[in-house]
Amino acid sequence: MEKEKPIILVTNDDGPQAGGIKALLEVVRPLGEVYAVIPAEGQSGMSHAITVRKPIFIEREIHRKDFHYYEVSGTPVDCVKLAIHTLLPRRPDLILSGINHGSNASVNVIYSGTMGAALEGAINRIPSVGFSINSFSPDADFTDAAVIAGMITRQVLENPGMICLNVNIPAVPGDQIKGIQICRQTAGYWSEDFEPVEPQNGKPGYLLTGVFHNAEPETPGTDEWALRQGYVAIVPVHPDFTSHEEIEPLARWNLEEMFFELKTVLTRYKR
Amino acid sequence: MEKEKPIILVTNDDGPQAGGIKALLEVVRPLGEVYAVIPAEGQSGMSHAITVRKPIFIEREIHRKDFHYYEVSGTPVDCVKLAIHTLLPRRPDLILSGINHGSNASVNVIYSGTMGAALEGAINRIPSVGFSINSFSPDADFTDAAVIAGMITRQVLENPGMICLNVNIPAVPGDQIKGIQICRQTAGYWSEDFEPVEPQNGKPGYLLTGVFHNAEPETPGTDEWALRQGYVAIVPVHPDFTSHEEIEPLARWNLEEMFFELKTVLTRYKR
Repeated sequence: MEKEKPIILVTNDDGPQAGGIKALLEVVRPLGEVYAVIPAEGQSGMSHAITVRKPIFIEREIHRKDFHYYEVSGTPVDCVKLAIHTLLPRRPDLILSGINHGSNASVNVIYSGTMGAALEGAINRIPSVGFSINSFSPDADFTDAAVIAGMITRQVLENPGMICLNVNIPAVPGDQIKGIQICRQTAGYWSEDFEPVEPQNGKPGYLLTGVFHNAEPETPGTDEWALRQGYVAIVPVHPDFTSHEEIEPLARWNLEEMFFELKTVLTRYKR
Repeated sequence: MEKEKPIILVTNDDGPQAGGIKALLEVVRPLGEVYAVIPAEGQSGMSHAITVRKPIFIEREIHRKDFHYYEVSGTPVDCVKLAIHTLLPRRPDLILSGINHGSNASVNVIYSGTMGAALEGAINRIPSVGFSINSFSPDADFTDAAVIAGMITRQVLENPGMICLNVNIPAVPGDQIKGIQICRQTAGYWSEDFEPVEPQNGKPGYLLTGVFHNAEPETPGTDEWALRQGYVAIVPVHPDFTSHEEIEPLARWNLEEMFFELKTVLTRYKR
């Protein structure tokens, strides 16, 4: 009996016209039964946003042998939820997101719709990988990045486990890539600049721009460092935001005294 | 010389009409120079989303002694960014978000616009606290929750440090609260249900509903457990998504072999 093909869910945050998803689908389609469930419009910066209290719609769908394609009027996380719970015949074996047009290394992982989709996979305990290329150039070439994404996809299919990976790929021709490194997220932040725009009805308006600051630029083992050295940077991520090392110091707050004071205040307040 | 008043930035994700922000501002205004920078419209489920490539506008502003109020056509994270980088006279000493109408314990922290705003503070290394009340009832009473929020705010102002807290408050009268606990994020997930709605122009539509599943319901030390027992649950959070314990197992992937294969594929491909 032929082995059942893996079900692979593919999404992104740049929408259906993006070069990154076209390149990714090309290398992934031979690997299984592929469901592409994609935001109908670009969703950059949408993070883990979901659409609540209003419906989402399937704008378009196409069905071929081992390939199903949907455009959805929602966020990347909406796409993953709708796919898992409604569109797919069973839970997918793997969720892929990207290839994003622009790095999601360092703190960009938090703002990223690409990684929002991958983390939604992790919450549902489905192996998930987000791919990004370190270039915002409109004519970025995704060909070699897609070959790398395909190889990592095969690796994950062959070593199934509860993983969620943030994969960032240098925007250089493949033969200039120096290797693959497992990294941690670089500490960093954006120093934002809001550019004033023409007011609307007298209301001041601002356009977000900004510059990324690497808080540890010379640190091997960080994803930014690996990327800059020409390596593919792979960071395992998870949806637990707890800062575990802070639990003990915080527990040294005098919680009982705080609580006693609270009781006193609340009682006085009620009188 | 009088000590300089702390600058406190206050935001939320339920918008200006929400009872939670009104109650929070009432207890916080006496504690410093307060800047309320609030999404003009409800932003539930917006997570860490930012508005990119289109401007945001200040819909309304009010200035009083030690109190400045702005409504902004953006997400909670947009509000924090615009406040820090444009509206405030200097970096705030503290960022408060909430009081959210509904629990942000467990995995809800990830979808939450309230906690998105608080985590944006953490990225900028500003002490930040998100407050939520464990009730979705439209007539939830925020009075006692606000007293608790005020007390925790004073505690953080007196013990400044790089902290970002996810505070969830039981929706019971204050005198029924059992105490305050420092916790970790509970493992859990939503089993979504998409309710079909009337198609639009023949396009199938779905409305997100769902049920939260606690993956470790009997586990003391988790925020869900503390909340259900009647405690205020405080989880220290941080914007590092790295799953540090997975770095070593992943590094056992044969990266050199993968890379060698990659080189071979890319070379063949180029010929």
